Amino acid sequence: MIPACDVQYSKGQGRFGLSKVGVNGVMKPVRIVRKEDGNDLNEVLLCSIDVCVDLPATQKGSHLSRNVEAIRAVIDECASNPVESIDAFAVRLSKLLLEKHEYAQNAFVSLDTTYFKDSTTPNGRGTLEGYNLTAEAEAVRGFGVTKSVVAEVIGMSACPCAQETAKEILGANGELPVITHNQRNVCTVRLTVPEQFEIPINTLIENIEGCFSSPTFELLKRDDEGAMVINAHRATKFVEDVVRDTLAMLVSEYTNLPDETEVWVRSESEESIHKHNAFAERSAYLGDLREE
Amino acid sequence: MIPACDVQYSKGQGRFGLSKVGVNGVMKPVRIVRKEDGNDLNEVLLCSIDVCVDLPATQKGSHLSRNVEAIRAVIDECASNPVESIDAFAVRLSKLLLEKHEYAQNAFVSLDTTYFKDSTTPNGRGTLEGYNLTAEAEAVRGFGVTKSVVAEVIGMSACPCAQETAKEILGANGELPVITHNQRNVCTVRLTVPEQFEIPINTLIENIEGCFSSPTFELLKRDDEGAMVINAHRATKFVEDVVRDTLAMLVSEYTNLPDETEVWVRSESEESIHKHNAFAERSAYLGDLREE
Amino acid sequence: MIPACDVQYSKGQGRFGLSKVGVNGVMKPVRIVRKEDGNDLNEVLLCSIDVCVDLPATQKGSHLSRNVEAIRAVIDECASNPVESIDAFAVRLSKLLLEKHEYAQNAFVSLDTTYFKDSTTPNGRGTLEGYNLTAEAEAVRGFGVTKSVVAEVIGMSACPCAQETAKEILGANGELPVITHNQRNVCTVRLTVPEQFEIPINTLIENIEGCFSSPTFELLKRDDEGAMVINAHRATKFVEDVVRDTLAMLVSEYTNLPDETEVWVRSESEESIHKHNAFAERSAYLGDLREE
Amino acid sequence: MIPACDVQYSKGQGRFGLSKVGVNGVMKPVRIVRKEDGNDLNEVLLCSIDVCVDLPATQKGSHLSRNVEAIRAVIDECASNPVESIDAFAVRLSKLLLEKHEYAQNAFVSLDTTYFKDSTTPNGRGTLEGYNLTAEAEAVRGFGVTKSVVAEVIGMSACPCAQETAKEILGANGELPVITHNQRNVCTVRLTVPEQFEIPINTLIENIEGCFSSPTFELLKRDDEGAMVINAHRATKFVEDVVRDTLAMLVSEYTNLPDETEVWVRSESEESIHKHNAFAERSAYLGDLREE
Repeated sequence: MIPACDVQYSKGQGRFGLSKVGVNGVMKPVRIVRKEDGNDLNEVLLCSIDVCVDLPATQKGSHLSRNVEAIRAVIDECASNPVESIDAFAVRLSKLLLEKHEYAQNAFVSLDTTYFKDSTTPNGRGTLEGYNLTAEAEAVRGFGVTKSVVAEVIGMSACPCAQETAKEILGANGELPVITHNQRNVCTVRLTVPEQFEIPINTLIENIEGCFSSPTFELLKRDDEGAMVINAHRATKFVEDVVRDTLAMLVSEYTNLPDETEVWVRSESEESIHKHNAFAERSAYLGDLREE
Repeated sequence: MIPACDVQYSKGQGRFGLSKVGVNGVMKPVRIVRKEDGNDLNEVLLCSIDVCVDLPATQKGSHLSRNVEAIRAVIDECASNPVESIDAFAVRLSKLLLEKHEYAQNAFVSLDTTYFKDSTTPNGRGTLEGYNLTAEAEAVRGFGVTKSVVAEVIGMSACPCAQETAKEILGANGELPVITHNQRNVCTVRLTVPEQFEIPINTLIENIEGCFSSPTFELLKRDDEGAMVINAHRATKFVEDVVRDTLAMLVSEYTNLPDETEVWVRSESEESIHKHNAFAERSAYLGDLREE
Repeated sequence: MIPACDVQYSKGQGRFGLSKVGVNGVMKPVRIVRKEDGNDLNEVLLCSIDVCVDLPATQKGSHLSRNVEAIRAVIDECASNPVESIDAFAVRLSKLLLEKHEYAQNAFVSLDTTYFKDSTTPNGRGTLEGYNLTAEAEAVRGFGVTKSVVAEVIGMSACPCAQETAKEILGANGELPVITHNQRNVCTVRLTVPEQFEIPINTLIENIEGCFSSPTFELLKRDDEGAMVINAHRATKFVEDVVRDTLAMLVSEYTNLPDETEVWVRSESEESIHKHNAFAERSAYLGDLREE
Repeated sequence: MIPACDVQYSKGQGRFGLSKVGVNGVMKPVRIVRKEDGNDLNEVLLCSIDVCVDLPATQKGSHLSRNVEAIRAVIDECASNPVESIDAFAVRLSKLLLEKHEYAQNAFVSLDTTYFKDSTTPNGRGTLEGYNLTAEAEAVRGFGVTKSVVAEVIGMSACPCAQETAKEILGANGELPVITHNQRNVCTVRLTVPEQFEIPINTLIENIEGCFSSPTFELLKRDDEGAMVINAHRATKFVEDVVRDTLAMLVSEYTNLPDETEVWVRSESEESIHKHNAFAERSAYLGDLREE
């Protein structure tokens, strides 16, 4: 029999409290059951999970194994009592962490996954698209849980300035869309809200996709590819425009979210004319955006 | 001749101001001239550079090409008027960005590089070690420049808890250091100060290396390897200990830095017994750490 | 209606044939139904898929959209006629690629995924461990299909040389296991065989795990951690030893595989005493290994 | 005093010979002195270095510390006797490895670096561009040294098929260049030759850049950006075309290289219309390409 480890319990030796102590990169399959049109959709998401809690100055070490035990306990519980989203999973896990680490005041959880969603090409064909998705939760003892949903969406941006320049050089009369450089653009939106607010992920992704010059697709037959290229050249956008249009979309579409919702939007353009990228960002409270 | 691009100047169309607009991943060789023992040491560092400024709501687009022009101008200036460190480079560049983007209130610069430093093994042999180094600068119009130095140092941590357990199981009498698991540990320190404060990088790295169970070395002859392993097993540390010892070191060694110095310390242990990592963090003002 | 694209069909313009033309990084959830103890285990694996075919000199361009169509067709077929493994998926897809690209002589498929497997700690507790897994298939028109299974397994290696040195320096009498440095070790095994041979993945992973100083676990209670550390220090291994023991394991355990099985084994040790890694490799036919 | 380590020398215990044993990821600044227009250009390149040798079945372990000693010795020698290129460095290091590992028959060296080169925009402005560069050397005892130069060049490719489709849909009359999707394209060329052949790196990069729809630049004023976009749309290329044009360039420009030169060319297009990439490859002897 192994006696308890004195090393972790010798109180009072540590001079400084720590903001975060935990584990990162724990790989787990997470099962969610999503409601859609009245049906239950079973999905298994491969997640990389980070969890941590704070550590008071009086305590020598954090009980790291409790973190993995908590992850396992929530996964087990989901077998009988499923979650509807990875942010719901993160919230549930953050609460259990506070239970298990009785000395901690805060618990943080982050899950990264690849999420798949049905989409439709310009000419109406169905495709399946993948997105990096992150869910975070922070539980503060006595103050509830805040959660974040982070969607990283790939689209296309076509440059309005080079189009204008090309038009001038070529002497184009403006009847047809004019050439410009275009490229992959990654638009990332993070929304941070109290746990009771729902942010349906499929709608969020679709809303973001509407802010590019064009969304992108896994499979494009010739007519779809042509339509997509034409659409993009009729909706040219700088990285600044992608961010601003996304902010405007959030203000108009998310009227149910409270003013204190924290918003972070970033658009990064993998410039086809340079070896480096261009980017734009905005962070703000939703309430402030509503007034701008 | 190409007329000015109207697209970028059409004021008042953009509804939202943006926190950051710029370019990232610009690769450049940066020359620094470091003073050491009264000598000038010429070094060329390969840097990946990110720069951005804010954008007011009244302006349609940021002038992205000015960012690369500013980087080039500072590199050119360094030929005749060299900088002593990459944080000095970042500060100089942040000021020029505010000059070039007359509409901006803030400018941000970040440089990532690999830095090399002479070191010495336990038994006195010379080695050359590499470190990831980041310098950041934020210039606020009318309020001066704040800079950050971020040193990412690789060392070894050996686990005190598993050592205690192994001692109990084996019935070791404590005369010899007892086995435990050990692994790479990455300790990252970020210090944010007003631009006039100097943070000599070699000393900072050496100070951090003193907070591991042992520093690591590119080349170890047998006696050095033996000495290093013994040293590490006599200075076992959790990730929590690495962070706390680093915080204590900062308090005792950096008495010249002001209370408002922002400190962030993270230790991440690439656990040899798990497939995932363990980590600990603390962020605080130096003034608060001085009082804990 | 969009007429056929002449660009891709104008034959005879291309001077050089190409070895490979295709798409890479297509993300897809792939469902497999594994037989285990007479039961069907349904698993959904997140896969990154690369596919390509060769292109004769006479053909201007490859039909890239057929690659994604082929991936989708095999995923659809798996709904009614499931595969038992990702290598079976790769084989099926490689055959369909040859069908769809009638001008090609070779088709290549590669799937990368994270695979989970139940494991057991030294003291008998159950855990779930994750592994990077790759399956490849190459179909040659008229010559059948060859497939590869690549398992990347993380374990621990403890250094025998530093242990010997520490023993000498400390004057240890050899009764107790002596300290040494240990670290994460990644052992990768690739086996390439004709399509009809089965290589059960769970057994392969377990066999590789037996060749480390110790396997690693997501969750270790104190007694398990102590036992694991002691086990590892009683089975110290260089990277060379991990590779050789793996080769010996393959010879003794895979007597059913043919002599022409291509074997590649690599062990990489993330040295806790250095900032760089150490590695060893062997590639050979299984028949040659049987005679060494 | 530390006696010699018996562990590494106990012969005959190892059953299998190993193809490669060594270290990887050793970071070093490497100084080269390039001849250009009769001048000596001093450059310091940040290199990540891998080195290894084979290990016969009769030898228990490889002397890993000799690898780092060899790297240091060649760097020291370069202070007085500089190399002109990183491939010359790799060749010199591979020879020293065979000297130091008297039991080995083969030595392999690989250096990865970021290389900078002056370039010129379409309208004649100077820029500085960065490229990933790899040099490899393989020394076989008694058979000399073979070296490889690998240049990874980023450019732009614009799609001819989508341009054709857009032209049809839009009813464009062909007077002006028609819109299409374009994106970053990474073209990688590896040339493997006996050590005595020189492959000037600046010329190689420029030759590859001529095979894209357009090269890319760190800084483009408006007229340059417009010219570049127009150029690219007048030289649309599939990934297949980039590879084939590169192969044709190698045949016409490298008449001094022997028939047994090994050629590998890959073009990867970071498709702006998809979330995945498209790629094409060819590997061949230069002699075979000369006959196709």
